Amino acid sequence: MRELPTILDFASLRALYAAGISPADVMEAVTARMETGDPAAFIARVPLETLRAAAEALMARAPDPASLPLWGLPFAVKDNIDVAGLATTAGCPDYAYQPAANATVVERLIAAGAICVGKTNLDQFATGLNGSRSPYGAPRCVFDAAYVSGGSSSGSAVAVASGCAAFALGTDTAGSGRVPAAFNNIVGIKPSPGRIAATGVVPACRSVDVVTILAASVADGVAARQVAEGFDPTDAYSRRFSAAALPGALRLGVPGEDEREFYGNDAYAALYEAAIVRAAALGATIVPFDYRPFREAAALLYEGPWVAERLAAIETFLDEKPGSIEPTVRRIIEGARGMSAVETFRGAYRLEALRREAEAEWAKVDALLLPTSPDIQTVEAMQADPIALNARFGRFTNFANLFGCAAIAVPAGFTATGLPFGVQLVAPRDSDDALAEFAEKLHAAAGCGAGKARDIALPTMPQIEAPGRIAIAVVGAHLAGMPLNHELTDRGGIFVKADRTAPHYRFYALDTVPPKPGLAREPGFAGPGIAVEIWSLEPAAFAAFVAAIPQPLSIGQVTLAGNDCVCGFLCEPAGLTGACEITHFEGWRAYLQSERADS
Amino acid sequence: MRELPTILDFASLRALYAAGISPADVMEAVTARMETGDPAAFIARVPLETLRAAAEALMARAPDPASLPLWGLPFAVKDNIDVAGLATTAGCPDYAYQPAANATVVERLIAAGAICVGKTNLDQFATGLNGSRSPYGAPRCVFDAAYVSGGSSSGSAVAVASGCAAFALGTDTAGSGRVPAAFNNIVGIKPSPGRIAATGVVPACRSVDVVTILAASVADGVAARQVAEGFDPTDAYSRRFSAAALPGALRLGVPGEDEREFYGNDAYAALYEAAIVRAAALGATIVPFDYRPFREAAALLYEGPWVAERLAAIETFLDEKPGSIEPTVRRIIEGARGMSAVETFRGAYRLEALRREAEAEWAKVDALLLPTSPDIQTVEAMQADPIALNARFGRFTNFANLFGCAAIAVPAGFTATGLPFGVQLVAPRDSDDALAEFAEKLHAAAGCGAGKARDIALPTMPQIEAPGRIAIAVVGAHLAGMPLNHELTDRGGIFVKADRTAPHYRFYALDTVPPKPGLAREPGFAGPGIAVEIWSLEPAAFAAFVAAIPQPLSIGQVTLAGNDCVCGFLCEPAGLTGACEITHFEGWRAYLQSERADS
Repeated sequence: MRELPTILDFASLRALYAAGISPADVMEAVTARMETGDPAAFIARVPLETLRAAAEALMARAPDPASLPLWGLPFAVKDNIDVAGLATTAGCPDYAYQPAANATVVERLIAAGAICVGKTNLDQFATGLNGSRSPYGAPRCVFDAAYVSGGSSSGSAVAVASGCAAFALGTDTAGSGRVPAAFNNIVGIKPSPGRIAATGVVPACRSVDVVTILAASVADGVAARQVAEGFDPTDAYSRRFSAAALPGALRLGVPGEDEREFYGNDAYAALYEAAIVRAAALGATIVPFDYRPFREAAALLYEGPWVAERLAAIETFLDEKPGSIEPTVRRIIEGARGMSAVETFRGAYRLEALRREAEAEWAKVDALLLPTSPDIQTVEAMQADPIALNARFGRFTNFANLFGCAAIAVPAGFTATGLPFGVQLVAPRDSDDALAEFAEKLHAAAGCGAGKARDIALPTMPQIEAPGRIAIAVVGAHLAGMPLNHELTDRGGIFVKADRTAPHYRFYALDTVPPKPGLAREPGFAGPGIAVEIWSLEPAAFAAFVAAIPQPLSIGQVTLAGNDCVCGFLCEPAGLTGACEITHFEGWRAYLQSERADS
Repeated sequence: MRELPTILDFASLRALYAAGISPADVMEAVTARMETGDPAAFIARVPLETLRAAAEALMARAPDPASLPLWGLPFAVKDNIDVAGLATTAGCPDYAYQPAANATVVERLIAAGAICVGKTNLDQFATGLNGSRSPYGAPRCVFDAAYVSGGSSSGSAVAVASGCAAFALGTDTAGSGRVPAAFNNIVGIKPSPGRIAATGVVPACRSVDVVTILAASVADGVAARQVAEGFDPTDAYSRRFSAAALPGALRLGVPGEDEREFYGNDAYAALYEAAIVRAAALGATIVPFDYRPFREAAALLYEGPWVAERLAAIETFLDEKPGSIEPTVRRIIEGARGMSAVETFRGAYRLEALRREAEAEWAKVDALLLPTSPDIQTVEAMQADPIALNARFGRFTNFANLFGCAAIAVPAGFTATGLPFGVQLVAPRDSDDALAEFAEKLHAAAGCGAGKARDIALPTMPQIEAPGRIAIAVVGAHLAGMPLNHELTDRGGIFVKADRTAPHYRFYALDTVPPKPGLAREPGFAGPGIAVEIWSLEPAAFAAFVAAIPQPLSIGQVTLAGNDCVCGFLCEPAGLTGACEITHFEGWRAYLQSERADS
């Protein structure tokens, strides 16, 4: 086959498949790449013959590449997540076990056509943010092998950034799915807690662990996340989630100057400033906020009782084989030995108090724009001071899961010495889809490609249609840019598409202030159809929107040109009295333009 | 003044006020009653001169009794809740402190016109369900002084049941607001956690504590709860809540035979069976369910790590003055001394697993109908075996707050020996209002009055209008009893009232299957007005309802006879083509009756 692209974004792979390349060919090329890549990235590679068999099984099961959302996409799995047939080590050889089944998330991805190519290295027991706490070696930043890859999803990030996988699974308790994304110029999708099931995942802090997606682009990561997520009754922390809306024009919180700690890394500080400027240029309103309650919550994750969850997860193993555990990891986990139940509840109270303090900040902003990590270090420096330097990396990530947030980490440029920097967007629970739109723009605006492919054009997302939203056809003052459009956007309305009514509609300019149109169905009438915009709203927002619509307008079913019906604006019979028919303008914009031309 | 009624239900007191009795008169009568009542019920009584001053201040502030929702209603406060000017003891004299301010909940009630008459006795630190763990004495069941009052809100229940207060505040962690209601033939309203703020309340288990209302009737309790509740930013566990709906015809879960444990109290077992029969007669579908996951969660509250919250609350006091604590309470709380952080997280994991198991049961039922307490004991027996006998009382109550439920305990009859029995309705978070409707019916059907007044007719609730619901005027097939009414009730629709449109509406029988009417506004037309029913829906349910409305109907604003507008059914102009005007029937029911008469 012809050579694989530098980075395996979904669109490039799909183009290969469309051109007749087979999944088996891709698996062969990926195998060659894994063999010559960072030797510390994978703990286990799936043998080529097994990959070929998986590719052939896929062809037999679903011959059409368009029939499955992740058809033929090679993916890597962090080695604290079960893949049947491969040992799960959690980065600790003596802990290894042979799982009887795939983790729920792996099962969902494979069912969607993805092919697992290997298990990736990690900071042992997912305890670390740097990637150097593993007996399987330290994966390196793909841009400078002196530097850490970030962790704990170190191997997963390197695999994606070096084109060994189209996407990879990570986990993220403190920031493990985001920091390595930042250090390798890729995207880290950290879903809201409970969206991706943790059944088959070795717990770190079980109450706050999150499975993440590492990918070349927001579009790819979101597509994988949408397949990966879903309620799983076998995981007590899995949730039936919904889609929280964000306004079209985001208020983005950035820490006040006193909280912009970069530990002397001036290059990163400057790159962060540049990211803020780009966000503003993309239409966000930049709002300084007080990071203190977030920082204090972040500190609780390692300084408070939650470390005891790590102990709860491996207590028997630690008791039996203390020498098998990486010394820094062991030191951290053993720190929970003396912690009491009273301290634990006091930690929980403290977190609730901080959550309340943070609410005051959330009232000012829709999402936070934060550095992913404020610093990067060499492997050598990290090994000399493994705890303090690691703690720096989590300064802006550690709070997110404790507060139940969604986060997306995106690349944000390079230092003069060629080291990548990343930023993250963080927003309240279940804003995952809503957050993706701006994250994608921000990534594109950074102009730094993805992974090792610093100059590629990024794939973009298809229109995100969140399940459960209600579509509504608007025809007048609620159209984009019109005076009442804010009634949609203020309520989290998302523009879906421009469309047209079926021909049997007449259109009127009503005698109202401000001027409004009226749409009237007339069976048998063969007109041109009227231009509409379809927007979507969360049900509660839709309800509030409908409840506020004044006479003579109402909401019923509007038949579109394609003959499907959608909720939309209609007019009471009484409203049409004295109205002027404007059907021939075919829409409100054209009518208003002609009015302006006349005056 | 003439004598106070046996029990101070709100309607009776309002009738006194309407008859010209003054609040000061009522305070005087209440004082006399407190002085001669159970000497263990109150830890502190507000002096008469202070009550008189409060009554006069109320008259000065709000002379019209109708101007405040709790105008002139005397209430008692459990002595773990702060009332400015009175010591808070939590049932422990050496722990007593003088609060600087009212608890949030007390402040809200006083602002609404209620007058605090005293602080009531409790099981010390709210640790107990029987009422005998207090150095201030053991309040007694108002029907038999040999028996316990139930606790820990012992004095509050006795105060209401003996007519010393129109309502009282309790707290409920394990069942403290429900068990004493059951043992004194009154209603215990246990709101969903986080609805009533806990600022100014001595914590028991802070993460699961709930402030409750004890009252003569569901109507009274709900009215007080609606005033008491509200978001309070100073309490980290306070929530912005909504109203969860329940269907009009409830599926009521009752434990399978193997879980109906009454500890040999056959009279209570029989009374529970009778309550199930009454619930079925009231239209509920009785569904056996598996109580096991609920029972195991209930057991966690005292056998799991949550006891450490009680220790966290008073650890310093316990260290300094162990001898000041009631021996049984001290023994329980000291049991948390050795508990570790790891055990605490394991307890939390266990709770989440049980919550998941309980979900399978919730899928079968809308609410649970459970005994409040399966047994009652004499004070003598309780003191001889204080922990085991107390544990019995919580068998069916202890899970509710851990699972975030709303619950309402109502009287359910008397044994042949004259001891009261109660049942509780328990449903998922924020079903508080929805649950009240059936709870009121169930109380009325028991025919046992309220408190000592076993033969009074119970006051009934005014229509509950939950804030945040959206009202909708229906005119045709969605009217109560009509073919499409289920589209409202299936979505939790609540009937609000019958009403009529303004005169300027014409009414048509449309040419549809099933037959539907069309309402058309016509400014200037002077008709009779059209009969409508106002229903209310939660926003998300309203959205789903609106989105499903087919052509030619739509939802806009309908002007009512009183000239206010409400969302309601309208008709597209095209729908009126070929329709038959039926305005003179003044409504759909009258039109259908005439049709039937014709055929």
